[in-house]
Amino acid sequence: MRLPQGFRTAAGTAGLKVSGKPDCALIVADAPLRWALAATTNTLEAACVTRNRGRLKSEGPVRAVVINSGNANCATGARGVRDNDLFATTAAAALGVPSDDVLTASTGIIGEPLPVEKLERVLPIVAAHLSDDAATLARAILTTDLVEKTAEVTLESGARIVGVAKGSGMIHPNMATMFGFVLTNADLPQGALRALWGDVVSKSFNQVTVDGDTSPNDMAFLLANPQVAVDEGEFAWGLTQVAQDLAKKIARDGEGATKLLDVQVTGAETDAEARRAARAVVLSPLVKSAAHGNDPNWGRILSSVGASRVALSLDAVSIRVQGVEVYRGAPGRFSAAEVSAKMVAETLEVRVDLAVGTGSGRAWGCDLSAEYVRINADYHT
Amino acid sequence: MRLPQGFRTAAGTAGLKVSGKPDCALIVADAPLRWALAATTNTLEAACVTRNRGRLKSEGPVRAVVINSGNANCATGARGVRDNDLFATTAAAALGVPSDDVLTASTGIIGEPLPVEKLERVLPIVAAHLSDDAATLARAILTTDLVEKTAEVTLESGARIVGVAKGSGMIHPNMATMFGFVLTNADLPQGALRALWGDVVSKSFNQVTVDGDTSPNDMAFLLANPQVAVDEGEFAWGLTQVAQDLAKKIARDGEGATKLLDVQVTGAETDAEARRAARAVVLSPLVKSAAHGNDPNWGRILSSVGASRVALSLDAVSIRVQGVEVYRGAPGRFSAAEVSAKMVAETLEVRVDLAVGTGSGRAWGCDLSAEYVRINADYHT
Repeated sequence: MRLPQGFRTAAGTAGLKVSGKPDCALIVADAPLRWALAATTNTLEAACVTRNRGRLKSEGPVRAVVINSGNANCATGARGVRDNDLFATTAAAALGVPSDDVLTASTGIIGEPLPVEKLERVLPIVAAHLSDDAATLARAILTTDLVEKTAEVTLESGARIVGVAKGSGMIHPNMATMFGFVLTNADLPQGALRALWGDVVSKSFNQVTVDGDTSPNDMAFLLANPQVAVDEGEFAWGLTQVAQDLAKKIARDGEGATKLLDVQVTGAETDAEARRAARAVVLSPLVKSAAHGNDPNWGRILSSVGASRVALSLDAVSIRVQGVEVYRGAPGRFSAAEVSAKMVAETLEVRVDLAVGTGSGRAWGCDLSAEYVRINADYHT
Repeated sequence: MRLPQGFRTAAGTAGLKVSGKPDCALIVADAPLRWALAATTNTLEAACVTRNRGRLKSEGPVRAVVINSGNANCATGARGVRDNDLFATTAAAALGVPSDDVLTASTGIIGEPLPVEKLERVLPIVAAHLSDDAATLARAILTTDLVEKTAEVTLESGARIVGVAKGSGMIHPNMATMFGFVLTNADLPQGALRALWGDVVSKSFNQVTVDGDTSPNDMAFLLANPQVAVDEGEFAWGLTQVAQDLAKKIARDGEGATKLLDVQVTGAETDAEARRAARAVVLSPLVKSAAHGNDPNWGRILSSVGASRVALSLDAVSIRVQGVEVYRGAPGRFSAAEVSAKMVAETLEVRVDLAVGTGSGRAWGCDLSAEYVRINADYHT
């Protein structure tokens, strides 16, 4: 996959990972970028998140993002702030742009100082190998992820939207932070991009849950090199597609996951209530365990919806699993064995209609396997 | 353990469980009781919860509670409401008290009609075998619980507080609802009891989490036969002890659990924030997995606290695991192997000081084992 017009990327190995895999990357644009950012609500905010938030407030353009994996530079105090600034300055010098024009993104182990001297050595070399190959970026930002995650849409006008993401849960002592980078050459005002990004993130990255833990480093970037005029409605559609595609890939790559859980809630009083109910379903360890065991357990689905405290009509609420109605105001007449056989699939579709309004929303997660426990419990043993 | 003066109980087998174990019970008092109730926030509220809430509003006294396990009579529509009324009427007739004076509590499978005719046959026999043996009650209300849960405190004045509880997670297609029954012969006004009960429940039953799923049938009852004058402050202390003791026993008996997770948060801006942070820690699958693997992973603890969005001082926040300081504004100097060895215990104590105020709170949970997944995924296979 190629990056949109005007964007280039490169990756390198500074030595932050025991595995020796790529651990740093650059995204750089030929011209000043319009941009938007959605970041973690975790109060244990990493230095890169704080700095980017400050840059966001200034409303000014940016030119590049420098990323590392293997060290989150989080819970590292005043030293972490200085190291993060140095990380940005080093990348800016290598690229020949002002350091204020460079955003930063770190993911990996927390509480350990960022070995910024290692990054200083490698970034000039990385900056000399820029190309438009999205896979290079996708590979370099992985931590515990098993697969690279990219997505793209081309609009009628020829404008492109290309997304790259990482994230698969959290693993000791790292936090497998979720990053999303969506790059486009669509020409829209920055205000429109920012409003749209908040809306799209609330329907995509914020609707993914692997284990309910929010990392202090989560960030989703929208970077626009304004070259091609677009219809705003079509762009919104394309951006949502790319972000939701990445969200699904993150959920499917959840630690220990064997299948994607795709939950759609309709008939809610508001879209926000629908999204909350959908999140509650994909978050429930009981639903996740049932999904793993191919058990069409409507009771757990209904109860997790109820626990999210959304308005619903108990007499009319309906639940479909793999297209089969298993509940409508009362348990449906269905063959558990047949539905269970349909649940042996890459994607498990759950549809819930709350029967009180027109709000709708989706969320994505994964099943809960004994492998998840093994990954997260046995690190030290 | 004997019930407090003026209370009697009995249990029987109506045949609601495949196992043939006791599945119904009565709690009855010689005289009108003052009482308080805390019930589920799940919008999928069971018929018994709705009826008890109605009785609570009337402010009148009650004389008895009739309980069944094996069927939750939840998501059963209008028929469920009628069956629940019949359940109360049948118990009232067997005890010779008005049916309005009888509260109901059902736990077990949801979405299936309550086989009330089976209960009608056995309740008169149960009512003829009343005694003051708390264990009879504790045994009859179990579903997937492994052990009976009782607790007691005797006050200076001789007044007694005796608690009986059940709950251990949720298992298909049942919901292993949490019930708490706390009985006392202390003489306090009903208004004082109700205010106190809300406060005590918020510090005990509401701070237990096994898997984050709230059952539609959860209820905690306080029943007082006003015989012995007490000091209200001492009573509040005793009531808290009994409720927290039951809460801990529920957490320890969590499905697949091998140890109790006891989390105390201090230094919060408010008690409510401290309780929220403590709940976030015991709910985190990453913390629970680390607990299972005896991994003193302060990063996961700190991140789950951060995800709860409570105020904290990043420079001063401290974390202790089994008494050892593993973090204070920065990772502590400790031997991971030594702390890990201390974590091989029945109870894992985590202490977090947020260093911004004087609020404190506790929560209890359990570790996450592969056995939890096996119990909840493999029911059908």
